Amino acid sequence: MIRMGVIGYGYWGPNIVRNFYNQEGIRVVAVCDGNPAALKRVNKIYPDIRLCADCREITTDAGIDAVAIVTPVSTHFELAKQALSHGKHVFVEKPLTATAAEAEELISLALKNRLVIMVDHTFVFTGAVRKIRQLIDENVLGTLYYYDSTRVNLGLFQHDINVIWDLAPHDFSIMDYLIPEKTEAIAATGASHLNGLEDVAYITAYFAGNLIAHLNVNWLSPVKVRTTLLGGEKRMLVWNDLEADEKLKVYDKGVEIKNAENVYDLLVNYRSGDMWSPRVEQMEALSLECRYFVDCVEKNQTPFNDGQAGHRIVKMLEATNVSLKNKGEIVYL
Amino acid sequence: MIRMGVIGYGYWGPNIVRNFYNQEGIRVVAVCDGNPAALKRVNKIYPDIRLCADCREITTDAGIDAVAIVTPVSTHFELAKQALSHGKHVFVEKPLTATAAEAEELISLALKNRLVIMVDHTFVFTGAVRKIRQLIDENVLGTLYYYDSTRVNLGLFQHDINVIWDLAPHDFSIMDYLIPEKTEAIAATGASHLNGLEDVAYITAYFAGNLIAHLNVNWLSPVKVRTTLLGGEKRMLVWNDLEADEKLKVYDKGVEIKNAENVYDLLVNYRSGDMWSPRVEQMEALSLECRYFVDCVEKNQTPFNDGQAGHRIVKMLEATNVSLKNKGEIVYL
Amino acid sequence: MIRMGVIGYGYWGPNIVRNFYNQEGIRVVAVCDGNPAALKRVNKIYPDIRLCADCREITTDAGIDAVAIVTPVSTHFELAKQALSHGKHVFVEKPLTATAAEAEELISLALKNRLVIMVDHTFVFTGAVRKIRQLIDENVLGTLYYYDSTRVNLGLFQHDINVIWDLAPHDFSIMDYLIPEKTEAIAATGASHLNGLEDVAYITAYFAGNLIAHLNVNWLSPVKVRTTLLGGEKRMLVWNDLEADEKLKVYDKGVEIKNAENVYDLLVNYRSGDMWSPRVEQMEALSLECRYFVDCVEKNQTPFNDGQAGHRIVKMLEATNVSLKNKGEIVYL
Amino acid sequence: MIRMGVIGYGYWGPNIVRNFYNQEGIRVVAVCDGNPAALKRVNKIYPDIRLCADCREITTDAGIDAVAIVTPVSTHFELAKQALSHGKHVFVEKPLTATAAEAEELISLALKNRLVIMVDHTFVFTGAVRKIRQLIDENVLGTLYYYDSTRVNLGLFQHDINVIWDLAPHDFSIMDYLIPEKTEAIAATGASHLNGLEDVAYITAYFAGNLIAHLNVNWLSPVKVRTTLLGGEKRMLVWNDLEADEKLKVYDKGVEIKNAENVYDLLVNYRSGDMWSPRVEQMEALSLECRYFVDCVEKNQTPFNDGQAGHRIVKMLEATNVSLKNKGEIVYL
Repeated sequence: MIRMGVIGYGYWGPNIVRNFYNQEGIRVVAVCDGNPAALKRVNKIYPDIRLCADCREITTDAGIDAVAIVTPVSTHFELAKQALSHGKHVFVEKPLTATAAEAEELISLALKNRLVIMVDHTFVFTGAVRKIRQLIDENVLGTLYYYDSTRVNLGLFQHDINVIWDLAPHDFSIMDYLIPEKTEAIAATGASHLNGLEDVAYITAYFAGNLIAHLNVNWLSPVKVRTTLLGGEKRMLVWNDLEADEKLKVYDKGVEIKNAENVYDLLVNYRSGDMWSPRVEQMEALSLECRYFVDCVEKNQTPFNDGQAGHRIVKMLEATNVSLKNKGEIVYL
Repeated sequence: MIRMGVIGYGYWGPNIVRNFYNQEGIRVVAVCDGNPAALKRVNKIYPDIRLCADCREITTDAGIDAVAIVTPVSTHFELAKQALSHGKHVFVEKPLTATAAEAEELISLALKNRLVIMVDHTFVFTGAVRKIRQLIDENVLGTLYYYDSTRVNLGLFQHDINVIWDLAPHDFSIMDYLIPEKTEAIAATGASHLNGLEDVAYITAYFAGNLIAHLNVNWLSPVKVRTTLLGGEKRMLVWNDLEADEKLKVYDKGVEIKNAENVYDLLVNYRSGDMWSPRVEQMEALSLECRYFVDCVEKNQTPFNDGQAGHRIVKMLEATNVSLKNKGEIVYL
Repeated sequence: MIRMGVIGYGYWGPNIVRNFYNQEGIRVVAVCDGNPAALKRVNKIYPDIRLCADCREITTDAGIDAVAIVTPVSTHFELAKQALSHGKHVFVEKPLTATAAEAEELISLALKNRLVIMVDHTFVFTGAVRKIRQLIDENVLGTLYYYDSTRVNLGLFQHDINVIWDLAPHDFSIMDYLIPEKTEAIAATGASHLNGLEDVAYITAYFAGNLIAHLNVNWLSPVKVRTTLLGGEKRMLVWNDLEADEKLKVYDKGVEIKNAENVYDLLVNYRSGDMWSPRVEQMEALSLECRYFVDCVEKNQTPFNDGQAGHRIVKMLEATNVSLKNKGEIVYL
Repeated sequence: MIRMGVIGYGYWGPNIVRNFYNQEGIRVVAVCDGNPAALKRVNKIYPDIRLCADCREITTDAGIDAVAIVTPVSTHFELAKQALSHGKHVFVEKPLTATAAEAEELISLALKNRLVIMVDHTFVFTGAVRKIRQLIDENVLGTLYYYDSTRVNLGLFQHDINVIWDLAPHDFSIMDYLIPEKTEAIAATGASHLNGLEDVAYITAYFAGNLIAHLNVNWLSPVKVRTTLLGGEKRMLVWNDLEADEKLKVYDKGVEIKNAENVYDLLVNYRSGDMWSPRVEQMEALSLECRYFVDCVEKNQTPFNDGQAGHRIVKMLEATNVSLKNKGEIVYL
């Protein structure tokens, strides 16, 4: 039985506690939060969980085997370092750290102490993303042309990070999971209107070959949109995550260029066939991810969403910072 | 009675001929196209229109007062120059020319010969765009934060221009019409997958203040999208041009930041009220634009979508070329 | 070469003239309408078509082989009778006649004179309906459970018929085409709010077995809906005719009841699989129907949408009149 | 402090327990269910609630002041009668009873013992329905023409009642709340395909004047629909309960008939203005209803969703039984 402590019970923490609480093989024994009202909420639902206000009670407790860190990004490094130093596996909210250097230090520490780092990239555990991965693996889409995601809504403004650090980790981790090639370069543009941090931003990611990715992230949209287009040589896919029942639509559509002896002779063939909406698993993604964490700790396995994955995503985020400052200048990774 | 000749009867030409044909005060007397099949189609519908295969029959005909040029972009300059040189008013398909220098030469020539140049920026004559303009003029939206447009669909591949030159002139002319400030700089990214011309591209336009605009243009999308978000300090607007009845939705939503003595104390106030979908005029935009051309010629007026407007749009397009080549580097106008 | 006269150039007439005009093997030689403005519109587009104000010029003209009747329902019988009596094939707007008795007389007359009657049931020539027919023929849906159609919008109020006679012929003819069994009984309810004719109505049609059909027709709806659900034992289908690209969606969903030894033990199995949207032919339905009319006349064939089909639909409409009067009482056909 | 017992912890029971559990002024002290697994689930979440397998432990317990009955319809009468006889207020799941006679007996009993009966008509506590009521009260819609509701989805098959008794109580209670006039007559049609109970049904309700209501209820639909159209003389409303943000849309649309000296002269005026989507309260309806129950018990008030309201709905349901049996024959209430 793994004994877990959870640090942070704000917006996302309750989901983490609930999902680990309901897994076999693990027990949530303590929750820490600086806010007494948060601890009160824990106690109302889970009277058996120990409450504490000082994180060190968790990171240094010899009776605790694993720590979930669900706090603001800027605190991830210190907390994870403490926990790993005291021999605890860590489950860290995305993004893993505020800098790539911090991520590298955590990776080394975990390696040395033979501990698991898992970054909470919840989206790659959703039925939708796993189904898309299957379609790519089975070559249903053919060579990928582009990944184009729109992730906009009103708020939730963060105090310490801009809209890219808030929303883009979702897409970066999904791309990291879906696309075999790694990102080669990043360009980002954006603007801030309220608190000095970008609230509207656009990111282009270049890959080997002609594959291009683009993210549109926005905290000031009157409507919520969670739509990703994935264009391939053979088929094209639309993922609308707000649809209850038909999240994925695969279009048997394409364009072929033929006989292009010279540019004016080129024949463009458009193919337009059926659309198909594969059924998507409905299980809660976070529950699957928590299960996976328990399995990795028990079997001493390296998860695919490990420190390295977290490090790749943080490097992309750092690149957006540099590019933003230079109004879209390309940054090679 | 203005006597008009039309050059080009391909994809868009039939709409131009039909709309000028039905106006009072103007007569379409001749149509030119190098393709005999096109001329046959003209004749079937308009047996009274003279057909010709050589453009000079139109540009130099003393009996013709105005010429509509509906040919590939690369030919606009030569044809317009001929027509203006022979004292004819011109109505030119967007974009006005292939280079800003060409546009400048046409503007000088028209000025010298006291002739009208109108660029076919059809979208600014739609009920939707005119209603948005009215909402901006009446300060319904407040200070503008961003203009974010998605204009994607499958095809229609052009032989001589990339997806930006094909689709972005719509948004550039709409922005030129709606936004009082002028674009200061452009950054563009993109990729080409089929014929060496970009078929997927993303453009950021910077304005004075914090206003930012972004266009997503794509010839390889399995679904057609024509959606523009316009965020303002007071209200936000969504324009879905594919909706039959509710093209515009105005959201009484907003975000305010208060009491921000230090970053951790900042209070974010979200306001969320009613949504309102104003009725939009249904008249065919191109018909209104053709009417406006006739009026400008008759009254010797300068249209707002004149050579200068066309020149501004071509300058933005040229900037995207430079930025694309440098993978998103900012280009100041 | 068949020589055709068209009677009526109001709302639907222009489509009839245009579509017959463009067919090979037939020539529209004359159009009749009591309204001079309508004839003027004909002349502007088709200067070669003879105009006439008196229908007898068409129904009795020895130089005319076929007559299309596109006038109010109450006049169909007299005009068709005249035309058939003078040896002309007839193409009649739906519904065929105002009473079943009239339809029977026309059928006899056509039979005696060996002439074609075709009723304009345009919808059964659409790609969507033909694809649904194919799915039913191939047993993709399994035993049919229900046909449920909503056909509502604002207006167009008719002066002489209620909303059922205006809109239900579409569904009645589609059901007649799709469903192998014939309607056994009808129940209709409704209300009138403006001109004494029902503007909101609901029709239930019973078939052999447990198949039930229902139509919701309404002239007072603020939104336009054209949606039909078709439930089958094996699969279920939704046809949204207002969708541009995905008109048909086939759901691999179903319910099975098992082991029902007693009512409380019954096990309900829900099956929920993929959705599939088959590509639908985009050709204009009316063009196909006009082509079919020409073929039937040329080959002396009986169309499937013949007088008998028209008669079946009129009998159903008559039944709704009786049921409406008795507030929903069942009427056996 | 009111002490409440809850009978039934199946599909809906957990919501009832949770909502009463979180109210001030009331304590859920006991839950009864014949199924041990259900009781186990209660205990896991609410270790402080007493569990019992025999309902009489609740209905006869002198320490209990109020009983919530969340069991199959056929058992409502006996359980409510027991509870009322032992001096307990009752909160009963819809529909109140299986027959109108049973409802009448409960009403008498409650009156005699001065006890509150509340029927769980949750929908009338939703923000959407309360906003519609406000629009009707403020005469925004004008004289009502029709209420047209579609409430379809796949399953959930009930063992003891047909689709009307399952789904129509929602609309009947909404109509009872929204429409000042009472239903005068009912006609219902339907069919059963699986377990001998109707799974597809259509109900017309007639009111004084020309107001008509219609419900489309279906357990065999591949898609979930929860849409109600409400047509009025001045404006029309669409309520789509599955929309997250724009549940209500009010259309400034209408039809007027003028100058109708004779039927052929009648002038139909169509009015088409803006659409407006009023903001709707997001509070959980059931929580408001539970609060209201506590208030009514504390203040000894008669709720508007009392036994009389429950009785009216049961009478309408009984009428559908009779009409269904006679294939749509009208049944006067």
